[in-house]
Amino acid sequence: MSSAMEEWRFPARYDQDYLPDPDQPYWFPHRETMDPQERDAAVLARLREVMAYAYERSPFYRRKWDAVDCNPADITSFEAFEQVPVVTKEEMRAAQRDHPPFGDYVCVDDAEIHHIHGTSGTTGAPTAFALGRRDWEVIADNHARIMWAMGIRPGDTVFVAALFSLYLGSWGAMAGAERLRCRVLPFGAGVQGMTARAVTWLARVRPRAFYATPSYALRLAEVARQEKIDPREFGIEVMFFSGEPGASVPAVRGAIAEAFGARVVDCGTMAEMTPFMSASATSGTPDGMLLWQDIVWHEVCDPATFRTVPYGSEGTPVYTHLERTSQPMIRLASNDLTRWVMEDNPCGRTYPKLPDGVYGRIDDMIHIRGENVYPTEVDNYLRGVPGYAGEHQIVVSRAGTMDEMTVRAECSYPPEQRPEFVRTTGEGLQSLLGVRVTFETVDAGTFPRAEHKSRRVVDERAHARR
Amino acid sequence: MSSAMEEWRFPARYDQDYLPDPDQPYWFPHRETMDPQERDAAVLARLREVMAYAYERSPFYRRKWDAVDCNPADITSFEAFEQVPVVTKEEMRAAQRDHPPFGDYVCVDDAEIHHIHGTSGTTGAPTAFALGRRDWEVIADNHARIMWAMGIRPGDTVFVAALFSLYLGSWGAMAGAERLRCRVLPFGAGVQGMTARAVTWLARVRPRAFYATPSYALRLAEVARQEKIDPREFGIEVMFFSGEPGASVPAVRGAIAEAFGARVVDCGTMAEMTPFMSASATSGTPDGMLLWQDIVWHEVCDPATFRTVPYGSEGTPVYTHLERTSQPMIRLASNDLTRWVMEDNPCGRTYPKLPDGVYGRIDDMIHIRGENVYPTEVDNYLRGVPGYAGEHQIVVSRAGTMDEMTVRAECSYPPEQRPEFVRTTGEGLQSLLGVRVTFETVDAGTFPRAEHKSRRVVDERAHARR
Repeated sequence: MSSAMEEWRFPARYDQDYLPDPDQPYWFPHRETMDPQERDAAVLARLREVMAYAYERSPFYRRKWDAVDCNPADITSFEAFEQVPVVTKEEMRAAQRDHPPFGDYVCVDDAEIHHIHGTSGTTGAPTAFALGRRDWEVIADNHARIMWAMGIRPGDTVFVAALFSLYLGSWGAMAGAERLRCRVLPFGAGVQGMTARAVTWLARVRPRAFYATPSYALRLAEVARQEKIDPREFGIEVMFFSGEPGASVPAVRGAIAEAFGARVVDCGTMAEMTPFMSASATSGTPDGMLLWQDIVWHEVCDPATFRTVPYGSEGTPVYTHLERTSQPMIRLASNDLTRWVMEDNPCGRTYPKLPDGVYGRIDDMIHIRGENVYPTEVDNYLRGVPGYAGEHQIVVSRAGTMDEMTVRAECSYPPEQRPEFVRTTGEGLQSLLGVRVTFETVDAGTFPRAEHKSRRVVDERAHARR
Repeated sequence: MSSAMEEWRFPARYDQDYLPDPDQPYWFPHRETMDPQERDAAVLARLREVMAYAYERSPFYRRKWDAVDCNPADITSFEAFEQVPVVTKEEMRAAQRDHPPFGDYVCVDDAEIHHIHGTSGTTGAPTAFALGRRDWEVIADNHARIMWAMGIRPGDTVFVAALFSLYLGSWGAMAGAERLRCRVLPFGAGVQGMTARAVTWLARVRPRAFYATPSYALRLAEVARQEKIDPREFGIEVMFFSGEPGASVPAVRGAIAEAFGARVVDCGTMAEMTPFMSASATSGTPDGMLLWQDIVWHEVCDPATFRTVPYGSEGTPVYTHLERTSQPMIRLASNDLTRWVMEDNPCGRTYPKLPDGVYGRIDDMIHIRGENVYPTEVDNYLRGVPGYAGEHQIVVSRAGTMDEMTVRAECSYPPEQRPEFVRTTGEGLQSLLGVRVTFETVDAGTFPRAEHKSRRVVDERAHARR
């Protein structure tokens, strides 16, 4: 095996005919298993290259870096790189307002723009994403590479059950499946009646692999059962997820694995980085997500200083594209929360890992009477409770000067069994979260099921952001 | 210019880097403008090639043709070809039931299958489509070629506002736009609230070209106006349509052109043939659809004998793929209705033409008291009537032994003006259709707007097929 990193160049370009030997666990054996310090050294040089590229082509980055005397050529250490100011979503929105439609951080000619996608923008102005033609090929390649690590192989049928529109997760899964020489059924999701039809097609084509959001997989299992079909009959072996943290939430993960009898793989970073796939579990390292540092440079940072925190600590991910030429994100602040570690991965890849995935957003965290509550903790807890019927709502309100948190959970028990359910579950929640919780039950099926991502928190306080 | 047809070979394979000079009206100047008899001679040889290919690989075709002593090598004239038995949808459904999931008319190895799509199957068992990897490239190429003829050029933004799922029209439009080096926004359609978001994005990216179903374009114009945006402000120049006959129905076509201030282009054949694009108008021949006989061989046939009818006559289209290797359709009976002509096309292409598009289906035709009524005629008539508010329903029922037809149309007039509207419109409809019609009004907005294809006929008679 060569000691040079396979096909390592910028702008990236991959041999479109390459496929590993089917028995080989790695797409790029050297890149994935090499000494991480050696890889990091190559990445550091790449960071300088990407920054020089962006500085030359983008008024946005030039302005931003010139203001703090940051010169790409000076980035000769990770310490220097950590002082490059982060990019925020607000800055991008402002750049797109002033330079419509894509902002002045587009680094390719108009003629190179291949696809336009964006945030769905249910609140606020949507952000538009421009993806380059060559980028799209690279995206397909690195998706294929990570899907290979999940155990997906040429000829497998891949069923994509997420909306094909502005959202990029579905497109990346499809592009990766195509590059991997799979058979892809880009079914989509979100249209009335479509879930029942998905059940019909899953039963008919029996895909080996499946992509969706975690919420939607659970919804699909529910609809299958209504149609008197056990989701295990679909014969799915590998289910990979992004768009939501659920696939690393133990109880959600367990519920999906149990319903479908399949391996659950968490992946994904954030919309602005996609569909460059760069964080995911593998068949040999099934929990959490590895950070594929040669595709995207992931830092887990202190949210105040944006300097990396030591392995083992919690922080917020900051992302840098190493291969994107169209709208490269360089130190993009995610506002997400995670914890990273560096340990020996059973699959042999020498990447750092997020053992619990990306488990929340800084602004999803509910601050209540001085405590921080993560909605995913509530979800995880309830899914382990017998009698819980699959959906719940968290209502945060203010009575006078006091914040109050009410959790309303669907319950499958008859009325006479509910008081006991309320008492034990409410106590359990309270001791888990460390705040007082009013716990109530509602009938099964009361809350809407997510066709895409769940929205379970209703914050009624005056300062509520949502 | 060479007299040989450009890149004419089977299996088809096109130079993926080829693009014509932007000022040239034709993608393949010779193929498109050559002596049609010379082209037909090449097609006849290709038909033999495609049949020999299918005979060798598909038990379905072998069985079907052996039963009538039909040998591909004997197809030395179009007269001989017209005796090849047609393929029906029922046969394909039976083949897929007996040989799931794709039927025994798949002619490529499993490993070559790239995409799986299918009929949406709101009634009856859906049919699954397998598309080959190389087919998908060819599809992109011939879509690009026809989009070129519509006047779409590299660098144009193409907005695709049709559902990305089993339905193939949206995928073909996208693949063609990609091959043409356009910027594609694959927005999709069909999800609650998505139409208002489409309005936002159309105003923002101002695409030069747009693809949807005709019903949905009208729906979109309506939603734009509700949002106080004139659809003309989107700046769309070329709108191309398939999935429904509307874009050749004069009043629908006129309503779309008027609402958006854009050129309307009709295209499309049927689901089993797509996304091989082979029937469409061009910028120089804007009405009806040309039949690109070197992509798909189109015959317009007597629906009883399946022999072609003379140019100038009405009949049912019968389609044969000339480039598809995965599930080639050879003399597929469409059950549609059209009329074909052969005349000098202003754009210079030497293809036959369907001057009124594909205007109906044999089984959509309403048989009422011995008369045939096409729902598109009612649609076309109503759109020309002042006070008509955009949607209607046709109810066919039986009172005793008599068939009754009721048309319920939305009306924007206040109650006092309705009686006059009912009288004149009802009389107009009756004299147009030649059958007695009960005509009623309902308020504007009464009927659902189609997110995909319109369903306006309710047949309540005992023998109703739907």
